Amino acid sequence: MRKIHVVGIGAGDPEQLTLQAVGALRSTDVFFVLDKGEVKSDLTRLRRDMLDTHLPQGSYRVVEARDPERDRSAGGGAYAGAVADWRSARAGIYERLIAEELGEDETGAFLVWGDPALYDSTLGILEEVLDRGAVAFEYDVVPGISSVSALAARHRTGLNRVARPVQITTGRRLAEGFPDGVDDVVVMLDAQQTFRRYADQDVDIYWGAYVGTPDEILVSGPIAEAAPRIERLRAEARERKGWIMDTYLLRRNPRDR
Amino acid sequence: MRKIHVVGIGAGDPEQLTLQAVGALRSTDVFFVLDKGEVKSDLTRLRRDMLDTHLPQGSYRVVEARDPERDRSAGGGAYAGAVADWRSARAGIYERLIAEELGEDETGAFLVWGDPALYDSTLGILEEVLDRGAVAFEYDVVPGISSVSALAARHRTGLNRVARPVQITTGRRLAEGFPDGVDDVVVMLDAQQTFRRYADQDVDIYWGAYVGTPDEILVSGPIAEAAPRIERLRAEARERKGWIMDTYLLRRNPRDR
Repeated sequence: MRKIHVVGIGAGDPEQLTLQAVGALRSTDVFFVLDKGEVKSDLTRLRRDMLDTHLPQGSYRVVEARDPERDRSAGGGAYAGAVADWRSARAGIYERLIAEELGEDETGAFLVWGDPALYDSTLGILEEVLDRGAVAFEYDVVPGISSVSALAARHRTGLNRVARPVQITTGRRLAEGFPDGVDDVVVMLDAQQTFRRYADQDVDIYWGAYVGTPDEILVSGPIAEAAPRIERLRAEARERKGWIMDTYLLRRNPRDR
Repeated sequence: MRKIHVVGIGAGDPEQLTLQAVGALRSTDVFFVLDKGEVKSDLTRLRRDMLDTHLPQGSYRVVEARDPERDRSAGGGAYAGAVADWRSARAGIYERLIAEELGEDETGAFLVWGDPALYDSTLGILEEVLDRGAVAFEYDVVPGISSVSALAARHRTGLNRVARPVQITTGRRLAEGFPDGVDDVVVMLDAQQTFRRYADQDVDIYWGAYVGTPDEILVSGPIAEAAPRIERLRAEARERKGWIMDTYLLRRNPRDR
């Protein structure tokens, strides 16, 4: 039976690999790397470096494939549909990779930035491949340090306040309004800097880009002061590197609800 | 200047230590272990075993202290107050430990189960110690695999669904009602098995106790079927071990909102 590890490799700092993740890498014959194109080649290289550091050369194969483009123009209710189509296209690619590149008694691995449980599609895609029934395999999941945990650690702050909840959501959701019933909100996948619309409220922001890498940028403080600074630093970094990965925590003063 | 690492050591599986955490342990002279009493002695031993595994004997000291009892009778609005009083009592103890047991040029560490950013008071206590001004130190935070990530990995599920939010909250909060605006809710610190009150709804539960340890118990499925089973297994395990640490994800069918 083929085996597959879905391995959370942390948010960018190679030292955030767990011992369990290193063990999973060492038991892997074939790594599947789906390339999102030129702009993410830094990330592909970071993954390659991790393998070089922890595995003897020649002990593994790397199979690269091109990730299909997702239709990013879809807005509102069409968004989930566009993501589902994209996921199906990826399932076809994953199915082919597993069937053609992984031997019957071999172990493959997908390396996932952060934690496979948070805003990552790998588990859903593998379940879809299994549902199709064309190729059989066992898989397990190795949890990773999420960008959320990495962000909080670098800002030395908790995600929740005492006895209170925290919500993790997307920029799209935040654009619809500050979530009900919570004052601590972590926002991922926000290309639109949606935090700016809360600049007139009593909200603190803890923002980070490329967290845990040499390019790391951190900004925190009252959002009215921090937002223009984040906007400038974000634009500069994006220009310089060609891509950006950022996350932030919004912490609302309960009195301002 | 004294240095302190606040190190997330994962949810119970010693292999969930990150390379960064191992590095932090190795640079530590004094480990502070706050013992919550007999029932948690398994956890104290697990921590000791981690140190034995990764550090040369005789290279570090362990300082143990007794954690003050928290007033667990306080309900409702008094809860945060009771936690704050308890935190202040702990700040006094931490201050004394750091001042008396850690040399001026030494490095200390507090080992935190899971991730220091989620429902843990260490960062708040250290800030309170610094605010008091009696002892100065620098500190950093090493993120850890939270019990939330560990739970999701063992159930091989994501925490959020595509493009949707997830909320992390407490049993006390869940007792007030299913949170607004989310269908995926992770519940921590729930001694009351509050999930039982949603047994008549179209909700799936992903429950785990002692996740990542040899005692791990996992149950998932529609809550109406899973709840009685969890109740029984939980009572048996608690009886057998004298303590329990469990977490769960509730996943509501959006149609049932």
